Amino acid sequence: MLDRQARIEQVLHALLPSADVAPKRLHAGMRYAVLEGGKRVRPLLAYGAGQLAGANEERVDRVAAAVEMIHAYSLVHDDMPPMDNDVLRRGKPTVHVEFDEATALLVGDGLQSLAFQVMAEVAVADDPKRQVGMIDMLARACGSRGMAGGQAIDLEALGKAMSVPELEFMHIHKTGALIRASVALGARCGSALSDSQLGALDHFSKFIGLAFQVVDDVLDADSSTATLGKTAGKDALNNKPTYVSALGLERARALAAELRDDAIAALDALPRGGGRLRELADFIVLRKF
Amino acid sequence: MLDRQARIEQVLHALLPSADVAPKRLHAGMRYAVLEGGKRVRPLLAYGAGQLAGANEERVDRVAAAVEMIHAYSLVHDDMPPMDNDVLRRGKPTVHVEFDEATALLVGDGLQSLAFQVMAEVAVADDPKRQVGMIDMLARACGSRGMAGGQAIDLEALGKAMSVPELEFMHIHKTGALIRASVALGARCGSALSDSQLGALDHFSKFIGLAFQVVDDVLDADSSTATLGKTAGKDALNNKPTYVSALGLERARALAAELRDDAIAALDALPRGGGRLRELADFIVLRKF
Repeated sequence: MLDRQARIEQVLHALLPSADVAPKRLHAGMRYAVLEGGKRVRPLLAYGAGQLAGANEERVDRVAAAVEMIHAYSLVHDDMPPMDNDVLRRGKPTVHVEFDEATALLVGDGLQSLAFQVMAEVAVADDPKRQVGMIDMLARACGSRGMAGGQAIDLEALGKAMSVPELEFMHIHKTGALIRASVALGARCGSALSDSQLGALDHFSKFIGLAFQVVDDVLDADSSTATLGKTAGKDALNNKPTYVSALGLERARALAAELRDDAIAALDALPRGGGRLRELADFIVLRKF
Repeated sequence: MLDRQARIEQVLHALLPSADVAPKRLHAGMRYAVLEGGKRVRPLLAYGAGQLAGANEERVDRVAAAVEMIHAYSLVHDDMPPMDNDVLRRGKPTVHVEFDEATALLVGDGLQSLAFQVMAEVAVADDPKRQVGMIDMLARACGSRGMAGGQAIDLEALGKAMSVPELEFMHIHKTGALIRASVALGARCGSALSDSQLGALDHFSKFIGLAFQVVDDVLDADSSTATLGKTAGKDALNNKPTYVSALGLERARALAAELRDDAIAALDALPRGGGRLRELADFIVLRKF
């Protein structure tokens, strides 16, 4: 896992425009937002799925970088004053604090475009038609009926109580869609998996996406800002509906463990019992930040 | 031209998610930002180029809608308080005024994703490999070395004097890149043009993109807010370097006419003397808003 985290860092470093290229401040901001930070969960999922599908790893690099750029852009915009108004992310000042709000806006915009460029400028699948389908998949995952839509639902939910099914609906969009796409896109860089295996992989990613969010809610309620590298206790402060507010800390923890078991069970249908994705499921659920 | 403006309105109407689909406020904002407004210059250029290339018009619909969505997203973000802080656009309150800033941020984000989805979810070229190349082209045109980069250069330029070559560099990015892509993408929906004809078309689009911007500067200095449907006189107020501030009104007008002549001359190498693009060049230069 550590080797893949080091690998994606190198890949992102190479794919992001140099801060010496004009417009320099924008490019510096894009690099600041993406590099040196983050657990790289989405790239790790893409690499894990790609390995199962027998994918050329240089193709998976592209997909892994694209999903991480989309994730980073969403954090930059989400941290801005009209949204969460947060000052700390990945242990560093947020982009609008370190640079300025206008730059943060453009950094997010530029990262989204770059993600699609990274998916389109070289072959990432055996068949260009499949590549077009993968780009469609990424666009849907991050659009208004995916990640951006989840952010909008989140905004509307502030200060309201939400039932567990309502929370699930929000998170399936907000974090689930991109996590699911990370797995699906990694797998589509190769050709070794059958349709039913791709289906099992999709089940895995749905469970693990939800587990990821439940753990996020638990950590926000139960950790320090220093450990998290972002402001802790923010959800309760903002009166944000979470799995902890809906279920309490203990039942939320139990739900995360349950979702992890469901995710692992889905991997049984896959070669080598899901390979690295098995260990990733534990990484996601047992993480401390 | 009017028939194509009506056509793109229908196409955009159909491709934008319904405001009845959750998240409703986000989808209402996306429709508000795109529909019923705008001259549709980029779609018109795509249709004009597509016609010369013998393209199936339903494919050009996709390209035309995608470039207009990208343009609309850039206006929404550009109008927000950290950038131009403008309250009027296309004769209506800007998105962050009509809705709120958080929604405006997500409306722009969602429109950018949707543009790529629209380019990827069906075939827009004879060959999927070419389609992947077209998506790459769009991503580059709107990214940090294209339109978003131009916005960043614009930000840095506020309050500074700029020479004509510096202005040109800014506008080649800020408006030129997407206008150029609109023409190039429209042409690539068909297969009737030779490489040298595609080159001539590219010359046309570079000249017309610059002409468009010069005329924009002239209109901002020389028209009323009521005519423009957006705040007039804003450039001088913001101490923004423009062709009018660099050259004066008369010489800026002469430059626009010159660029229009260069654009028209580039069309001579094309079938039917460039067809509708000829009349579009006049529309762009002689427009009053």
